[in-house]
Amino acid sequence: MARLLYDLAGANPDFRFSPYCWRARLALAHKGLEAETVPWRFTEKDKLAFSGQGRVPVLVDGDRVVSDSWQIAQYLETAYPDAPSLFGGQEAQAVARFVNSWADSVQLPGLTRLVLVDIPATLHEGDRSYFHSSREQRLGMPLAAACADRDTRVEDFRAGLIPLRLVLKAQPFLCGDAPAYADYIVFGGFQWARCVSDFPILAEDDVVAQWLERMLEAAGPQARRMPSLRA
Amino acid sequence: MARLLYDLAGANPDFRFSPYCWRARLALAHKGLEAETVPWRFTEKDKLAFSGQGRVPVLVDGDRVVSDSWQIAQYLETAYPDAPSLFGGQEAQAVARFVNSWADSVQLPGLTRLVLVDIPATLHEGDRSYFHSSREQRLGMPLAAACADRDTRVEDFRAGLIPLRLVLKAQPFLCGDAPAYADYIVFGGFQWARCVSDFPILAEDDVVAQWLERMLEAAGPQARRMPSLRA
Repeated sequence: MARLLYDLAGANPDFRFSPYCWRARLALAHKGLEAETVPWRFTEKDKLAFSGQGRVPVLVDGDRVVSDSWQIAQYLETAYPDAPSLFGGQEAQAVARFVNSWADSVQLPGLTRLVLVDIPATLHEGDRSYFHSSREQRLGMPLAAACADRDTRVEDFRAGLIPLRLVLKAQPFLCGDAPAYADYIVFGGFQWARCVSDFPILAEDDVVAQWLERMLEAAGPQARRMPSLRA
Repeated sequence: MARLLYDLAGANPDFRFSPYCWRARLALAHKGLEAETVPWRFTEKDKLAFSGQGRVPVLVDGDRVVSDSWQIAQYLETAYPDAPSLFGGQEAQAVARFVNSWADSVQLPGLTRLVLVDIPATLHEGDRSYFHSSREQRLGMPLAAACADRDTRVEDFRAGLIPLRLVLKAQPFLCGDAPAYADYIVFGGFQWARCVSDFPILAEDDVVAQWLERMLEAAGPQARRMPSLRA
């Protein structure tokens, strides 16, 4: 049975931009596991009914169905112990959860206020109305209002990256000399932002921008060309 | 030669409150290494001249002199490979640096604005004037002004602990089932705050407060009784 990864897609089915799906894609690649990615749109909840929930990524690996990027990483690490490790041991996996939590609670909400308004233009027309209403409900304001002050807000966002910056001044990757899952977690967010928007998230001379370049190099040409597939 | 840890002390020489020194103390204890702690005051720069810099912690281990809490943890891990690991491997050590950076750039600056004003009363009289002027210069305002709005500021501080909270909802310690260096990093900050001030940093029902209780239990009675030694 083929290995399948249900992956959020835009109007162009090859345009893949979900931060959580990028974590899963790079986790699979790190393990050297081939997977067919299945383009999925926000409103295709029925296509995910088999997974018991309505969000991507969903990994189908033989008869195993795993959803949620963190669960997928844990599953891959356990199911493929002989492939290169995503974490580097139990304790490393526990500490990587802090990076995951920081990305989910600081990085992604921060990026949302910088790029959200640019997303609808990239979506399949069937998804646009759902996206508008679900995000406006979540944020309690129109998308345009959420990003209205992004030219000034970006300064606070950049300042909030200091924990990341301090690490990347001392070592090339979050995981040390080579990237691994903690890097993929944080990469997912920045990849999402650069896929959906041309808004300049990082200053060019930021060590975080230099790390992102290294990550794009490691992730391969498909990751780098993604913004060109925007609708 | 005895193993020595130069450790910041208050008016009462047994009152030890530096967040960085607590990291080093718990790292030594984790490794099962005895060390004599040497009480040191801010103005005793001459006593640290041998270390080539003017801050604690400084570890003297035989003929090795190591300063800076992160360097001390790395040194102990390398020098005592057969003792229980502080990190759990090279990659875990790399990722723990992110926790260290978060603590230094988010947790400690946040705590500073909640407890700084209470510190001078705990200090040796010879240190008070130095502490006032150095901290006021660093912050650009009087200590009292830095903490003037702490009753409202604490809400933002608590909200900013969400990366920590998300981890501790999923596992008992940052390092998994048992505490290790990433826990000691973050413990250092909270221990500092509870040593120097009675200001309520955490809500009682916060999982972070429950973790802090577990950490105090693990750190032993000397850590818990420290506030009672305040001058």
